[in-house]
Amino acid sequence: MAKSWATYGVDLHLEPTGTGVRRGLTDALREAVRTGRLAPGTRLPSSRTLAADLGIARNTVADAYADLVAEGWLTARQGSGTRVAMGAPPTPSRQWGSTVVPPTAPAPRSHQRDRPAYNLVPGTPDLTTFPRAEWLKAARRALTAAPHQALDYGDPRGRPELRSALAGYLARARGVRADPERILVCAGISHGLRILGAVLRGRGGSGVAVESYGLDVHWDLLADAGLRTAPLPFDELGTDPRELSDEAAVLLTPAHQFPMGGTLHRDRRAVVVDWARRTGGVVIEDDYDGEFRYDRQPVGALQGLDPDHVVYAGTASKSLAPGLRLAWLVLPPSLLAEAVRAKGGADSCGVLDQLTLAEFIVSGAYDRHVRAARLRYRRRRDALVAELARRAPQVRATGIAAGLHLVLRLPPGTEPAVLRAAAWHGLALHELHRYQHPDATVERRDALVVGYGTPPDHAWSGALDALCASLHS
Amino acid sequence: MAKSWATYGVDLHLEPTGTGVRRGLTDALREAVRTGRLAPGTRLPSSRTLAADLGIARNTVADAYADLVAEGWLTARQGSGTRVAMGAPPTPSRQWGSTVVPPTAPAPRSHQRDRPAYNLVPGTPDLTTFPRAEWLKAARRALTAAPHQALDYGDPRGRPELRSALAGYLARARGVRADPERILVCAGISHGLRILGAVLRGRGGSGVAVESYGLDVHWDLLADAGLRTAPLPFDELGTDPRELSDEAAVLLTPAHQFPMGGTLHRDRRAVVVDWARRTGGVVIEDDYDGEFRYDRQPVGALQGLDPDHVVYAGTASKSLAPGLRLAWLVLPPSLLAEAVRAKGGADSCGVLDQLTLAEFIVSGAYDRHVRAARLRYRRRRDALVAELARRAPQVRATGIAAGLHLVLRLPPGTEPAVLRAAAWHGLALHELHRYQHPDATVERRDALVVGYGTPPDHAWSGALDALCASLHS
Repeated sequence: MAKSWATYGVDLHLEPTGTGVRRGLTDALREAVRTGRLAPGTRLPSSRTLAADLGIARNTVADAYADLVAEGWLTARQGSGTRVAMGAPPTPSRQWGSTVVPPTAPAPRSHQRDRPAYNLVPGTPDLTTFPRAEWLKAARRALTAAPHQALDYGDPRGRPELRSALAGYLARARGVRADPERILVCAGISHGLRILGAVLRGRGGSGVAVESYGLDVHWDLLADAGLRTAPLPFDELGTDPRELSDEAAVLLTPAHQFPMGGTLHRDRRAVVVDWARRTGGVVIEDDYDGEFRYDRQPVGALQGLDPDHVVYAGTASKSLAPGLRLAWLVLPPSLLAEAVRAKGGADSCGVLDQLTLAEFIVSGAYDRHVRAARLRYRRRRDALVAELARRAPQVRATGIAAGLHLVLRLPPGTEPAVLRAAAWHGLALHELHRYQHPDATVERRDALVVGYGTPPDHAWSGALDALCASLHS
Repeated sequence: MAKSWATYGVDLHLEPTGTGVRRGLTDALREAVRTGRLAPGTRLPSSRTLAADLGIARNTVADAYADLVAEGWLTARQGSGTRVAMGAPPTPSRQWGSTVVPPTAPAPRSHQRDRPAYNLVPGTPDLTTFPRAEWLKAARRALTAAPHQALDYGDPRGRPELRSALAGYLARARGVRADPERILVCAGISHGLRILGAVLRGRGGSGVAVESYGLDVHWDLLADAGLRTAPLPFDELGTDPRELSDEAAVLLTPAHQFPMGGTLHRDRRAVVVDWARRTGGVVIEDDYDGEFRYDRQPVGALQGLDPDHVVYAGTASKSLAPGLRLAWLVLPPSLLAEAVRAKGGADSCGVLDQLTLAEFIVSGAYDRHVRAARLRYRRRRDALVAELARRAPQVRATGIAAGLHLVLRLPPGTEPAVLRAAAWHGLALHELHRYQHPDATVERRDALVVGYGTPPDHAWSGALDALCASLHS
């Protein structure tokens, strides 16, 4: 019996047996992109979700996605999953064999018209504000000052200049108790999670507690390491860690829950630390946007409470740009050697960007950039909240005044219509449900996650208009 | 009964049971470094080799090494293994617990005197010749021209600008049949091997044929992926692939065998390609220094013979600097999707260096730099060969006029004395045996691998003198 999948506006008809499933899925997805039924920029469900929906193996979905990424129809973006590629479909190539559109039938360009005009999907900062000139100046100073030896194979933890600069910055800005010797530079928080997953698995861990809401790419990375992820309950105070028991670790976003937007309650912070001390469990603190709090000093990092049990994970992806591929773990002494070994030398980060970021921090340029960005995002958030109060009083903006996104609660039953309207208005927009762990016991709510940090300035008012218009559908 | 290990001039007394082994090994190594018995820069045996020597588990050795890397006593360098850290020992830290030198007993700095004055260990280009000014100019042009979107999470294969530039360069300079769509940018050849190891293992492969001589870090990466490495025979024509049978892949250095220095014989190239076609096996062509041939046009890449079965692996580590962490795989169509999936997004390379290298290539700066480097290294090789003929006629330089190293055959029985003399003269030098696969059936020869590319210009004549003096011991 053929199966079909219509969740994302695409019907996929699949043969249920053997290699036919992968081939069928690949063909159906490619066709959907080619004809524009899946618009450029559309985020596909995670391989885990789609596999569950279709009742097929997760690897089959992952393989199909990988085929299409390789062919150029999809892009796999760390932190925001798999999407339909922007721009024209790839030039058909004979090398892809018979599963691709043959050269005699070039893919129509009509779906270019469907490219969303506005993007409020969370996860990316406004890339037009990357401080190119300042960065180049710092690169020049850093490369001019670097000893020749800095260009050699290096310490797998990363350049000492950067680890030292980060230790100072994190202590000052986030209350992290950081020793440069215990910092591991990595290529993004996902890379850090892959390293930690290998360490936990190597210690015999089998399960990691996660939050009811989060990023499926993180859950998938832990699953790839052989770790089962189990969501903690979520209530009006946020994530509830009281049921933690024998998990190897817990992954949390204490400063600013992603995407719900709360701060981990102080009583619950104590519960987490107490659990870690009692059981030897590891707390992984994902401080992805810890720099961006608008109404008060941000709550200090949980790591400051117990550097012996908390791994602090930070990133330049939100404060500067994801393309830098620079993030950092601050590790408890007991995890350091294993993490260094799990990282290995094979995927170290380039030293030039490391040296440049060190110079950028030490020179004060990083602080200036973060302050300017904080002001910019705060204005956007204020404008968004004010405009919604005026034009869409039926929705409720939730979450603390922080970060690059907020959650909009919608009147029950209205979410599908809002999403359809957003698509019609050329607005890329995510519903909250995408960020809900499949095993979470929370009820599904009608809500949107609005990434107000994503649009460039020139598109901001248009994006806001499109959002308000969509909410009135 | 305590075991001891004296191969590298250090006696290690180990308790043979339980966690005592790791602790004992760690303590003994740390003490050896602290007291200067293991001089800074000394390369330690691979964890595989030392484990075999001591009759303990490889992981135990790897853990001990990782502990000491984390503590700063050792450095783990991709491509050149684990070494004693250069410079002063780390400031003692209370955080390391009782296994470290307590703050009341600071490590003596005496072994600073033992730091080798000269370095002829292969694997690193002359880092003083990195074209800093040209690189910064290219970075400015590249970052100025880049679209904002380039700073976002990107294609896991790497930036299209770089893949396109590489495709052109590799076709022109190395005869590689390269389509930008089939290039995967990675963070070094080791990273590429890790990706390929995962792909091969994922396909059910269990063994990879390697050369009798090579890099233990590469063998270890394949072993970490669950693949057994088995060496091919090596005779006067070089690596002999005629015994290839049901291996999943073969790893070769066809243009310039590392470290023996020959070119894979044309008949044997045909044997390799024929094997791959018959069995579906994968050929991994490590073209680590394909740019550097001095006496003639380099032999084209093996990949050009059969792009459907050969993976071409190249790197900027020898032509520019290892610290860039930039390398590339050109993949057969049938491997592409799996390799993209194995790479994942979690360890992508920074886009700024990718864009800069693309600009560097397209502007012609890369060709100019490679030509200048070729001339420089050729002069060094010529000087080395001439000086040896004059001052040490008893040794024989072997290998083609190419690359950054050559092999010196020594009169039988003289190697230990030469190595001792080199240490006395402050010269870091590797014997050939370090690069011999533990299962290789070749006989152990008295020989050195001399990396003439490594010293900066100002140290070159001193290094040459120290080498000649050592050979007269």
